[in-house]
Formats: sequence, C-alpha cells, structure tokens
Amino acid sequence: MTTSSAAGEPLTIVAGGGSVPAYVAAAAMKAGRPGLIIALKGEADPSVEAFPHEWVGWGDLGRLEALLKRPGARDMVLIGSVRSRPDFNSIKIDLATMRSLKDILSIIVGGDDDVLSGTIKFFERRGQRIVGAHEIATDLVAAPGPLGRRKPGRGEAADIAVAMRAARAIGAIDAGQAAVVVNGRVVALEAAEGTDQMLERVKGIRASGRVKWSGRAGVLAKCPRPQQDLRVDMPTIGPRTIEAVIEAGLAGIAVAAGKVMIVDREAVVRRADEAGLFLVGEADPAS
Amino acid sequence: MTTSSAAGEPLTIVAGGGSVPAYVAAAAMKAGRPGLIIALKGEADPSVEAFPHEWVGWGDLGRLEALLKRPGARDMVLIGSVRSRPDFNSIKIDLATMRSLKDILSIIVGGDDDVLSGTIKFFERRGQRIVGAHEIATDLVAAPGPLGRRKPGRGEAADIAVAMRAARAIGAIDAGQAAVVVNGRVVALEAAEGTDQMLERVKGIRASGRVKWSGRAGVLAKCPRPQQDLRVDMPTIGPRTIEAVIEAGLAGIAVAAGKVMIVDREAVVRRADEAGLFLVGEADPAS
Repeated sequence: MTTSSAAGEPLTIVAGGGSVPAYVAAAAMKAGRPGLIIALKGEADPSVEAFPHEWVGWGDLGRLEALLKRPGARDMVLIGSVRSRPDFNSIKIDLATMRSLKDILSIIVGGDDDVLSGTIKFFERRGQRIVGAHEIATDLVAAPGPLGRRKPGRGEAADIAVAMRAARAIGAIDAGQAAVVVNGRVVALEAAEGTDQMLERVKGIRASGRVKWSGRAGVLAKCPRPQQDLRVDMPTIGPRTIEAVIEAGLAGIAVAAGKVMIVDREAVVRRADEAGLFLVGEADPAS
Repeated sequence: MTTSSAAGEPLTIVAGGGSVPAYVAAAAMKAGRPGLIIALKGEADPSVEAFPHEWVGWGDLGRLEALLKRPGARDMVLIGSVRSRPDFNSIKIDLATMRSLKDILSIIVGGDDDVLSGTIKFFERRGQRIVGAHEIATDLVAAPGPLGRRKPGRGEAADIAVAMRAARAIGAIDAGQAAVVVNGRVVALEAAEGTDQMLERVKGIRASGRVKWSGRAGVLAKCPRPQQDLRVDMPTIGPRTIEAVIEAGLAGIAVAAGKVMIVDREAVVRRADEAGLFLVGEADPAS
C-alpha cells in the first residue's frame, strides 16, 4: 500500500458503501495520519468499524458539524458508494441545521451532479479541503504499464489505442466512460447503461455472431470524462468488471493511468492473471 | 416523388432486397430514364418485376458483363440490402469470369468495407459511374426541416443539438451512426449492436428507472460516419425505426438532411404523425 506524506495531519473520511473507505483509513493510519471515519448510516460497510469512526445519518447535521470542528481537522475524503439521496424528511431541524438550511436545500433541489458539487461546497464552506481517496492510498489507481503478469501484444496494443480514443471521445460529449474495441472495430460504447451492462451486451453481440472473433480478443477501455471531479467521482473497475470482461470474451482492460480507481486491486490482478487477461494503465495523452 | 434531370440516359439499377430498388426504378422512369434492374437472385424483392429487369446470380458474371454493355448504359445505382456474401463456389468459370477473376477474388477475400469498395471498383473498371439512389429519387432523403406535422419544441431542439453532436462524435471514431438524448442526457450510443437494438436498450433503461422521464421525451439522432460512401451505403430509418422510437418513449427523430435514407417515407411520416412524434432533417454544420 502506497501512501501520501502529510504525517500527523488529521484526516476525515466520509464513508459511503464498499471496501474502499476502510482501505483509505488503513492507508492514512500507515502514513501516520490520525483518521476519523464519518460512516453514513445505511451506506457504510461494517469494515469501517476497525477504525475510529462515528455513524452519522443524512439528517444529523448538528453532529456532523461538531465533528468537523476537531482540532486540526482540515483534509477530508468523500469515498464509497451512496445509494440513497439526501432525504429532506430525515433532517433534524436543530440550530446547526437552521444555519445550514440554505446549503442543504441547494443540495437537495439540484440534479445528480449538483448533489456532488453541492456536497463539496457544503464542506468547503466549513473549512474542509476535499482530497481524493487516491491521494491518500495512491495504489487505488493504476500507474502506467501492466498491473498484472500479462502484457498486451501488438494487435492488442492497437485495440487499446482505438478503445482509449473512443472512451475519450464519448467522455468529451459527457456520455460515458468506457468503450470496447475488438480487432480494430468499436463494438460498444457506454452511455447511461453503465459498464457492466455494456459488457453484457458485448457478450450478446458475440453470441449472436453479429461480430465474430476467435479466442479472447479486444479490450475494455475506461477513462474519466474531462468534466469529472476526480477527488470525489472516479471511474472504477473491480472484481465484477474482470468477470464481465472474461464473460464477454475480451483479452484485457486498459484504464487511464492515475484516473481510474481499481477497487479490490489484489483480487482484480489475481483474477486477471489467472484468466490470462492483460490489465494496463495508459498514460493520458491529454495530461 | 422528386427526380433528377438526366432525361433519356439509361440507368442500371443493381437491386438487393427491400422496396427501395423498385422505388428508384419508378423515379428513373418518371424522369424519362430507361432503366434496367439487375435483380440479385435470392436478394431482390419481386416488386422489381414491375420494371424491365434481369435476374442475375452472384456467379453469373458473363451475363452481368454483357448487360453492362448495353448502348449508353453508364450510370449505375447499387441499392437494397444484401444478406449473402459473394459465394466463390457459385461463380461459373466462363471466359468473362476468367478475365474478371482477379477483381472478384479481391472482393471475396476482403473484409466488410472491402466488399463494397471492391464492388464499386469492379463496376467502375467496366465503365460504370456509380450514383446514389437519392440522386435519382431525391425524396429518399430528408430536406432540412420537419417531415411531418409536428415541430420540435424548444427543449426538444436542445436535445436534437446534443444528440446530433453525439452521433457525429461516434461517427468520427467510426463506431456508429446513432445516439439517443433525453432531457440533455446522452442515454445511448450505437456501435456494433445497430440502431434497433440500441432503441431496445433505451426502453430497458427507462423501464428499470436508471434514467427517468415523464411522457414522451428525447430524440434519436442519426447521421452518417464521415467515411461512409453515401452513393452506396447510407444510414437508414424506416417503419421499424419509428415503432422502436415509440416503444422507447422518445419524442422524435432527427436525421442529417440529405444523408439518411428514409425507407417507406409515406408510411414513416404517417405513423410519426399518428403517434405525435417529430421527424426532422437537420442541416449538417460540417457540410
């Protein structure tokens, strides 16, 4: 586990679901940063309880604001999946809430992206500096080059180049983050359906004979949209992605280096190695 | 039916499947162009038999070459769907075939695009000038503006602009021709699955609640890839497209004016009007 250097500085981790919040907490601890996990009720995984933590509901604003006033607490990570939306009815109207009401309302009323940027603004107004989980646990993202044992061959490298270009093109129009290319042909582009369903479609396209290839071939490429705030909203791949790529008959995965989160990296690399998939970080030509 | 002016000049129509070949023959006749339909065995629709025609198999090269030597026969339209691939075994090895063998082999051995460009080259070497079906029957494509009764509203015009931009972006990476945008959001991008299956997906995305909209909203946009040879390979919409758009809960369709073929236009416009869909030709900013 690689960690950033800001030893001694406290870190607040607002934790949604999944294994990553605890992973980030462990990285912070290893870096000598006293961390406090603010675990969202109904969202955060019990694994966070291995670290200093407080369970907080969407409505417990008074407690939340008090926790942010811990001495030296300045850096904050917002990490983990959040299924529920801030629920207006659950908010306890106390004095802290009254003071925050305008901010809260603008979060609740806004659209999807607005919730995220509204939440960031909410915390920034309270003196927090939002940092990315990958700035604390730097191995959450891929460095350029292969992550596992297998390296892409020459034809695969050509597919990677086309697929990364396709993924960037659909990011530029704010449509999606992922593309599948097999033997030079763009087989699928992601929009609202998400990566898993797109890979399911690739499986169907192959099964139907609409596009034919023998053995494993082609690549899933994933990269962020230019508009994404990578501190709080990163494209991710994880064990389920690997299984879906295997099912789809692809030969590997390419991700934008430093910009795509690999959830459960150890398991992901192990499974990719087992199945003979390549898994590679691609330096972004645009950055 | 609008027609081009080259009255008197013969026209050869190599006809695959569907209703369009006969439609083009009727337009040619109306323009005073003596047409001959070369109807591909196993592909062309019986409707072509209403016009001067010859049934020809993939292998009947000798007959094909003789037909091309009709006095003044210079312009040729290649139109209609072709399901089968040129079949090497069916080619009758006569003297004409021997002379053409090199050309034929290069068509058979090549990939998908190569079949088309190989076929064009084959005919061009034999003195033919390939013209687009829409140059003969100009109302096969949309003029700029609404085709039916309904005009897009202001929000719909915004969706059209985003969707046309998305469709062009995926064309530029040679991925697909169509995109769906609902209330500003890119919901689906077409690649190998084709437009009908993409629309099926949009239906599923709405049914699952992944993207929500009320009533009819959003647009299917369709335009050619910049690389497409519009003389022989145009994006198309037809009655099935309209039904799929209705099923998907969209409000209308936008096509690149002059560059997308509307098969069975009368039925398409009637059904769009019935269902209250808009159907609009969009002038291409790039042309």
